[in-house]
Amino acid sequence: MNRFGNKFCISLFGESHGPAVGVVIDGVKPGLPLSEADFEPDLARRRSGATGTTTRQETDVPEILSGVYEGRTTGAPLAILFRNGNTRPGDYEAFKAMPRPGHADYVAGIKFDGFQDPRGGGHFSGRLTLPLVAAGVVAKKMLSCTASAKVVAIGDAEDASEWESLLNQAIVEGDSLGGIVECRVSGVPAGLGEPFFDSVESLLSHLVFAIPGVRGVEFGDGFAAARLRGSEHNDPLGADGPVTNHAGGVNGGISNGAEIVFRVAFKPTSSIRKPQETWNRAEDRPGTLVCPGRHDACIALRGAVVVEAAAAIVLAGLI
Amino acid sequence: MNRFGNKFCISLFGESHGPAVGVVIDGVKPGLPLSEADFEPDLARRRSGATGTTTRQETDVPEILSGVYEGRTTGAPLAILFRNGNTRPGDYEAFKAMPRPGHADYVAGIKFDGFQDPRGGGHFSGRLTLPLVAAGVVAKKMLSCTASAKVVAIGDAEDASEWESLLNQAIVEGDSLGGIVECRVSGVPAGLGEPFFDSVESLLSHLVFAIPGVRGVEFGDGFAAARLRGSEHNDPLGADGPVTNHAGGVNGGISNGAEIVFRVAFKPTSSIRKPQETWNRAEDRPGTLVCPGRHDACIALRGAVVVEAAAAIVLAGLI
Amino acid sequence: MNRFGNKFCISLFGESHGPAVGVVIDGVKPGLPLSEADFEPDLARRRSGATGTTTRQETDVPEILSGVYEGRTTGAPLAILFRNGNTRPGDYEAFKAMPRPGHADYVAGIKFDGFQDPRGGGHFSGRLTLPLVAAGVVAKKMLSCTASAKVVAIGDAEDASEWESLLNQAIVEGDSLGGIVECRVSGVPAGLGEPFFDSVESLLSHLVFAIPGVRGVEFGDGFAAARLRGSEHNDPLGADGPVTNHAGGVNGGISNGAEIVFRVAFKPTSSIRKPQETWNRAEDRPGTLVCPGRHDACIALRGAVVVEAAAAIVLAGLI
Amino acid sequence: MNRFGNKFCISLFGESHGPAVGVVIDGVKPGLPLSEADFEPDLARRRSGATGTTTRQETDVPEILSGVYEGRTTGAPLAILFRNGNTRPGDYEAFKAMPRPGHADYVAGIKFDGFQDPRGGGHFSGRLTLPLVAAGVVAKKMLSCTASAKVVAIGDAEDASEWESLLNQAIVEGDSLGGIVECRVSGVPAGLGEPFFDSVESLLSHLVFAIPGVRGVEFGDGFAAARLRGSEHNDPLGADGPVTNHAGGVNGGISNGAEIVFRVAFKPTSSIRKPQETWNRAEDRPGTLVCPGRHDACIALRGAVVVEAAAAIVLAGLI
Repeated sequence: MNRFGNKFCISLFGESHGPAVGVVIDGVKPGLPLSEADFEPDLARRRSGATGTTTRQETDVPEILSGVYEGRTTGAPLAILFRNGNTRPGDYEAFKAMPRPGHADYVAGIKFDGFQDPRGGGHFSGRLTLPLVAAGVVAKKMLSCTASAKVVAIGDAEDASEWESLLNQAIVEGDSLGGIVECRVSGVPAGLGEPFFDSVESLLSHLVFAIPGVRGVEFGDGFAAARLRGSEHNDPLGADGPVTNHAGGVNGGISNGAEIVFRVAFKPTSSIRKPQETWNRAEDRPGTLVCPGRHDACIALRGAVVVEAAAAIVLAGLI
Repeated sequence: MNRFGNKFCISLFGESHGPAVGVVIDGVKPGLPLSEADFEPDLARRRSGATGTTTRQETDVPEILSGVYEGRTTGAPLAILFRNGNTRPGDYEAFKAMPRPGHADYVAGIKFDGFQDPRGGGHFSGRLTLPLVAAGVVAKKMLSCTASAKVVAIGDAEDASEWESLLNQAIVEGDSLGGIVECRVSGVPAGLGEPFFDSVESLLSHLVFAIPGVRGVEFGDGFAAARLRGSEHNDPLGADGPVTNHAGGVNGGISNGAEIVFRVAFKPTSSIRKPQETWNRAEDRPGTLVCPGRHDACIALRGAVVVEAAAAIVLAGLI
Repeated sequence: MNRFGNKFCISLFGESHGPAVGVVIDGVKPGLPLSEADFEPDLARRRSGATGTTTRQETDVPEILSGVYEGRTTGAPLAILFRNGNTRPGDYEAFKAMPRPGHADYVAGIKFDGFQDPRGGGHFSGRLTLPLVAAGVVAKKMLSCTASAKVVAIGDAEDASEWESLLNQAIVEGDSLGGIVECRVSGVPAGLGEPFFDSVESLLSHLVFAIPGVRGVEFGDGFAAARLRGSEHNDPLGADGPVTNHAGGVNGGISNGAEIVFRVAFKPTSSIRKPQETWNRAEDRPGTLVCPGRHDACIALRGAVVVEAAAAIVLAGLI
Repeated sequence: MNRFGNKFCISLFGESHGPAVGVVIDGVKPGLPLSEADFEPDLARRRSGATGTTTRQETDVPEILSGVYEGRTTGAPLAILFRNGNTRPGDYEAFKAMPRPGHADYVAGIKFDGFQDPRGGGHFSGRLTLPLVAAGVVAKKMLSCTASAKVVAIGDAEDASEWESLLNQAIVEGDSLGGIVECRVSGVPAGLGEPFFDSVESLLSHLVFAIPGVRGVEFGDGFAAARLRGSEHNDPLGADGPVTNHAGGVNGGISNGAEIVFRVAFKPTSSIRKPQETWNRAEDRPGTLVCPGRHDACIALRGAVVVEAAAAIVLAGLI
């Protein structure tokens, strides 16, 4: 389904090259100051421009359609619309016949009996993270805790000074790179999360795995915890809770008052200029595909603010 | 909440040392042959006995309370009950005053204002995975695909021949080990999963992160995908779908017909005999805690069948 | 589905002549005193005994399986079990071949491909209102407002002095009577209910129409409001809200602080001794059916406490 | 919440005098032909114009924002937007200080801490039925059964020939009339509805009671069934199901293959020109209110197509 959350609930809609993308948010606290300008900082972080991001210039102008009156939220559903601009549907005609490896083109055709919008991935496009980031901005206004996400690795480089040359090299080769985003949420009160099934990790991973390109999620020590001993991984308890944070801020699915820490693995961008083998469905024979060049070289770059939005959305539903 | 799923929906209840644990399952197909004996193979896999598992001998006798008539499911809710036996609540008196590091004891006290059942973790106990495994048995009966999970690493050893000595050593030292479980689901039709928020990965990770002790979930190449290039990670497409499986069977959140492959990191068991620092809440001063000895040395050992059950439950809700 | 509610959530299970009926309740406030004895007053109101109620003597002994520790609710799911006793499945063998007019026998066979439990209506039995009443008892403990329901009409008699003779006459004739239950909830704070779809009336009617035999629900002036003018029906407003109560305590789907008043129409009991025409499915020809005699002559009699429970369950999910 | 349904799911947003109202629909079958023109017939039925309807001329031009590609639904969420025109917010300034009797003005102020949009009832406006009717149009495209609703009574007149003079008289007097809408759904397969809580009646009443102004819902014989005997109300069964239809097409909450028949009581319009007593909150003293004249004299007139839409939306979620 295209909705997430019970108390703070979002419904996404839109396609990459259709008229618009948007979000309806239910469960917004009344009385929050909100205007279109409030979205700009996070939208700017998501926007292209840096080395390794798409050259598609998106307009990204939010329009608040409902839920705000005289500059404050009303408590009624908040609908935010982004008209699509700079669409070049012609770019995507080829993918109708030849689905892009690593993309949803192939499965969308099966799932929707061939009726899906094929332009730019349609509803599967990374452009859907735009209204997600907008929902995150609203969520953050409801929170006293602070979510902050950033890229911590690109390819096999964890040192940011190496990234630009790595990205430039990948761009030159028509290839792409994966990366890792780390998100930290500080100021979270202890006691959030619902046993058995709505653990903090369950809710966060649910939303984060909906972000296109995510391949893994881990909390605290994460996969490294599997190599530790209990005496190394357990966080000793002091008067005010755990005194170390191997758990990443969650025990038994419930926040323990420490910083929530999780990492997200993004795969390398699927769309690459390097020729790839696919199946030409129009002619029922093998085909070779070259994706046009205006894609991100590393989706983790623009993914950080999306992960941060996801964290805020989950927490707004838990407080 | 204690319920998961929309089409195949489970509600868990019970505490480790209360009268019983159980599950109510809604959305069961009518006409499936089902008897108490059908649960035994998976219950046996979850039961203690092997090196490194608890010495608490649980009875694990399922009673079907509803939803079956003359040996077949009726389509009405299926309730399965397990009476608790061999409870030793005295074991846990100490934890009321001194919460166990790494456990839910501390957060449960905050969340439930001190009214939680403290015996053996109460509702947070790993014993709740017993009805989850039972629900998995029912789910498997509804599936034409096959879920299969196994331990692939204990501590830093991926070779099973090393595991017994590692476990014995940890037991001797009063310590515990983490591990990794890998689950493969074959025979999955392409097209399952719902954009945007109910991706296959979102649903699987949601349920898997509800299993006590899970710290990470990754699909296909997982975190390693972050170190690959697009030309390495993308699965070329042939006439019948992807011809390699770096994606782990899912593109754009939708199953692509290939085997679904995911790995789950289990932390080392929190309960260890080695003395740990905690806070003595009764006397408001630091305390040292020794957990009694009948716990698993590695929860991944008994976690594999639980992960497999989780996969079956998610898939039964998608078909 | 067999679950209702988001914040206070119940899952029912069981069949009339199976091993048990029961309920799992999620969202119970921790720290409420609760014991099996607390259920008896409402169970007694639901139990047979008065003129016009079934002579089946049900045992109705609740067993709390989880969610209570040392006499207080823990905040974990509360499971309550009622073992079925005095089952006479032989009574119902005939209905397998010949579905009872007015009952779910016919539709259950279609819905569940013939695999439903046919004994006493199986999961469609009025016996499922037993765990519903139990859930109502728990809900009432969470409320500061007071729900109170009673029969206000039997057949065409609104005067209670006429009811006993009416019922006796119907029993003698092997027939049954309908009735109307009125429920009033006082002490409800203004502001409950969620626009647009979860109006107070929407939630109450949803649950009340799940009670077997309900044919109509109306709030405040109800159907009579359709015959009034706005100047007659509108409640003038004073300093503390409405000064009359034609609306039945709800405006725009939101409680207005006045007493919530609604009425529920129960149809006459479907099971009657008078011969009825049905279809003999075993022999594929018309058949005549006589239902055995131990049914309620008027289901509204035992329905009042069920309606009251429904009101409490809905309100426990709104506060 | 502002969403309804699980399989066919709608989210409404918007305010009467804000920028727009709209709906996001999830669960639309892919491949259905759909264009803006398809909405016109039902929108025209909802539009003002007939005797007794508002003189506010709404533009009601739907814009499909997503979910349609080359004239067919894609299976992705369908978002439909209606820009508001002809808004006269000045009309409503007075209601901020003096809530209208019978309206949501008073409760909205309490629920949303005074931050609600007060113009024309804001999100509580009957204008929200516009996107609901639009969703009904989409739902009808997915159905093989046919929903049809019409007014069957205005005030105390069930004969349509009396209605015009009744309405004109009420308008002259500055007053309003209630009415009753009857909805019939034919061609419904037997077996729809989910025991225990999602009975056909539960789902229909849930959505119908969300329509502003509804005070009662009854199925088949409805409240009259309470006055009947079992031998009169039970529908005898023939080879193909019930041969009469006192039940209104539903037994045990499950459709029985007969026409689903239900009636909906609409209260008289709350907004009337006749002076009404209210509370002047600005000056904390009693006040007298006169509502401006462009309201419906009887909301049932435009309510029929809304009820029909609600029936279609519920059924689209059950098939």
